[in-house]
Amino acid sequence: MMDDMAPRRPDPEALQAALHELSGLFGNRYSINETIRQQHAHTLTWGSNEPPDAVVFAQTTEDVAQIVRICARHGVPLIPFGTGTSLEGHVNAPFGGVSIDLSGMNRILAVHAEDLDCVVEPGVTRKALNEYLRDTGLFFPIDPGADASVGGMVSTRASGTNAVRYGTMKDNVISLQVVTATGEIIETARRAKKSSAGYDLTRLFIGAEGTLGIITRITLRLHGIPEAISAGICPFPSVKAACDATIATIQTGIPVARIELLDEMQVKAVNLHSKLGLQEVPMLLVEFHGTQRSVEEQAERFGEIAADLGGGPFSWATKAEERSRLWQARHDAYWSALELRPGCKAVPTDVCVPISRLADCVTQTQADIRDTGLTACILGHVGDGNFHVSIVLDMEDKAEVTWVEGFIHRLVERGLAMEGTCTGEHGIGQLKRKYMAREHSAGTLNLMRLIKKSLDPQGIMNPGKIL
Amino acid sequence: MMDDMAPRRPDPEALQAALHELSGLFGNRYSINETIRQQHAHTLTWGSNEPPDAVVFAQTTEDVAQIVRICARHGVPLIPFGTGTSLEGHVNAPFGGVSIDLSGMNRILAVHAEDLDCVVEPGVTRKALNEYLRDTGLFFPIDPGADASVGGMVSTRASGTNAVRYGTMKDNVISLQVVTATGEIIETARRAKKSSAGYDLTRLFIGAEGTLGIITRITLRLHGIPEAISAGICPFPSVKAACDATIATIQTGIPVARIELLDEMQVKAVNLHSKLGLQEVPMLLVEFHGTQRSVEEQAERFGEIAADLGGGPFSWATKAEERSRLWQARHDAYWSALELRPGCKAVPTDVCVPISRLADCVTQTQADIRDTGLTACILGHVGDGNFHVSIVLDMEDKAEVTWVEGFIHRLVERGLAMEGTCTGEHGIGQLKRKYMAREHSAGTLNLMRLIKKSLDPQGIMNPGKIL
Repeated sequence: MMDDMAPRRPDPEALQAALHELSGLFGNRYSINETIRQQHAHTLTWGSNEPPDAVVFAQTTEDVAQIVRICARHGVPLIPFGTGTSLEGHVNAPFGGVSIDLSGMNRILAVHAEDLDCVVEPGVTRKALNEYLRDTGLFFPIDPGADASVGGMVSTRASGTNAVRYGTMKDNVISLQVVTATGEIIETARRAKKSSAGYDLTRLFIGAEGTLGIITRITLRLHGIPEAISAGICPFPSVKAACDATIATIQTGIPVARIELLDEMQVKAVNLHSKLGLQEVPMLLVEFHGTQRSVEEQAERFGEIAADLGGGPFSWATKAEERSRLWQARHDAYWSALELRPGCKAVPTDVCVPISRLADCVTQTQADIRDTGLTACILGHVGDGNFHVSIVLDMEDKAEVTWVEGFIHRLVERGLAMEGTCTGEHGIGQLKRKYMAREHSAGTLNLMRLIKKSLDPQGIMNPGKIL
Repeated sequence: MMDDMAPRRPDPEALQAALHELSGLFGNRYSINETIRQQHAHTLTWGSNEPPDAVVFAQTTEDVAQIVRICARHGVPLIPFGTGTSLEGHVNAPFGGVSIDLSGMNRILAVHAEDLDCVVEPGVTRKALNEYLRDTGLFFPIDPGADASVGGMVSTRASGTNAVRYGTMKDNVISLQVVTATGEIIETARRAKKSSAGYDLTRLFIGAEGTLGIITRITLRLHGIPEAISAGICPFPSVKAACDATIATIQTGIPVARIELLDEMQVKAVNLHSKLGLQEVPMLLVEFHGTQRSVEEQAERFGEIAADLGGGPFSWATKAEERSRLWQARHDAYWSALELRPGCKAVPTDVCVPISRLADCVTQTQADIRDTGLTACILGHVGDGNFHVSIVLDMEDKAEVTWVEGFIHRLVERGLAMEGTCTGEHGIGQLKRKYMAREHSAGTLNLMRLIKKSLDPQGIMNPGKIL
């Protein structure tokens, strides 16, 4: 057992012993193939690829527990892997070790329609879940850009475009089954919708990025598919006007389901990628859920607010098909950014500030993009004060890479100075670790370290992430 | 530093040294008066009074930090105290020590109307907060029966009648300032509405009942006062019909703000206490929030559901005054139960089950009340699957006390057998500690103990509670 917190590579002999055991137990579900290892360190990040020493494909909770027990016995790091769509280097293996691929644990174990919940394995993706639920009249609202796995979404405390109405993963998980760092299988809570029976272990594992245990089963809250949905897009004369319209919408209690800002450059990118022909000015994409009557009323009220702030005219997409096209374009924002400079790479980053500071934060960030001479798009879950910048850059151009690093650093500092956080939904992973000490005081970080040390004294659970 | 987890009384000399220091520092804000000590161990529970050795009245976070540092140095237990309205012996001092009275820390430090949040000290009560907010058009929805302090509500993960729409304390706290067991002052999070930057310390302290640290400042989410509110009461032929109406209401996506069940006996008690003259059958009290049009629509739809299940007719209370009278009667349910047997004591208890099991759980509990020959009322936050039983008993009658203990035990077992929890909102305190090992596995409890031990290695923070 290690006493200090600094993670390190396992002892080579111990590593070989662990790999030998795993290979014997898992046969063709064990791999040390280089391509497979590299794939398992791959994410949509600009960090370098740091592959694990081996990959094991788990199919059951007992598989996971067995892998953890073997690795724990030999002091070998463990990195859980879902779909590899995380953005900050969450699945890299900087200290080697074993990647546990959970994508084969993709069963939907139960849907309790009366209780508006379901029980799923961590490899189920959000789209697969909603596909499965379609005939039940229920849906799962959390929608990060990628078709991520539910386990990964739990681990990064993901949110997405519906969070303003339905909350984030923090609000939509009832209970978790977790394999602890000693290989024990525990449940964090009962299936009741609420409880005051002890510490909130559920929320402790949500957003822990696999550093405290490996999630093997999730009980999720579901929501009724609304009777009526209406979506639309509304241009604004400025980012500030769009943000002010968002604040007014939320403050007057309009239960908007989605309210997304696209800045001029993002609209341009979306036009290129999805052939939408939109006016290239700041836009709000909005969606309302409810009964036919209430949706109409919400839309009407939003229209009044937008007009008061110089926005409009609206284009309403009432047909499901038009609506899908619009939201698909929104979800493709990351890919669309690449159209602005073909052959380049897009680096996505996110911050979140109190909504009253959002217009300032976005406006200053646009000025910084211009001043630094970057190509970058902004889009935001503005109802939450959360926005993304997708920076398109030539990774071969060292000077440009340095400019982008400086820009991200200033963006984070700007967000923090406005009482915000260095990440609203992407997580810390490897790349934002350096900002933990900017965001949190030494005392707060110390508490997190105490928890990490108590639950993972060997430091083998996804080392080099968060702390 | 103690190595095992069993809490114990402090060394008498160390205790005297700590009290001497506190007395010197806090002067007339320090007391060892017996009445004051007993008042600080008093709660609305049937457990015995176990007073602390001294009470210190804190006025600032620095006061709290100083008290904690002194007590930590001498290994003396600390029990935070707000209004003393908790129900499971949370403020008792079974191992003596110092009660920190936080009721004087009752300042509202900031209201950020644009961000829909506010910053308050822990001694602010929910009613005082809403009184203060009245002119801002905002309100704080969490409403346990008593006019509890916000700090206490955080610590028990309180909810109340609005939770079905607005969530519980878990969902309505953005950030906490906490004095740790070493007397350090930390903030759990930034003021942004969401974040993925590290472990969710906020949720860890919510519901921890003061066993991990003392909450000294709370950033709360607020909500816009709805433009229109409509409340009503609807009789049902059976508890099952009322529960089925609740399930249907929630499943069809009616955004009901409150939906409360009163069983026959509870209606009788409310009639006696509040002179309401209601028909003594199971009732649902409902409330809808929204615009005038949406509230009417919600009410209409609920009426159709109720009628389909044999309920009705409704009495709608559209006037604010009528509505207040109805909800005051609901909030007085605990006191009203006492009218059923004047001179007796009412013991409140709560469980929470998945909503699909609620009708079964309530019906079986009513049968148990009849079979055991108890006088008891049931009322429930049925939208959450949570219900309360208020048992009226003669505390001098040992046999009756034993029957009540047996009844509560069976109630908890019944709830747990239905995938429920031994407490939906009252918390564990002292009296439900024995059920922790029924609700959680040994592995889950072990994780909670590891966390407790890492954050409070001396075991001085509210010892004898939860674990």
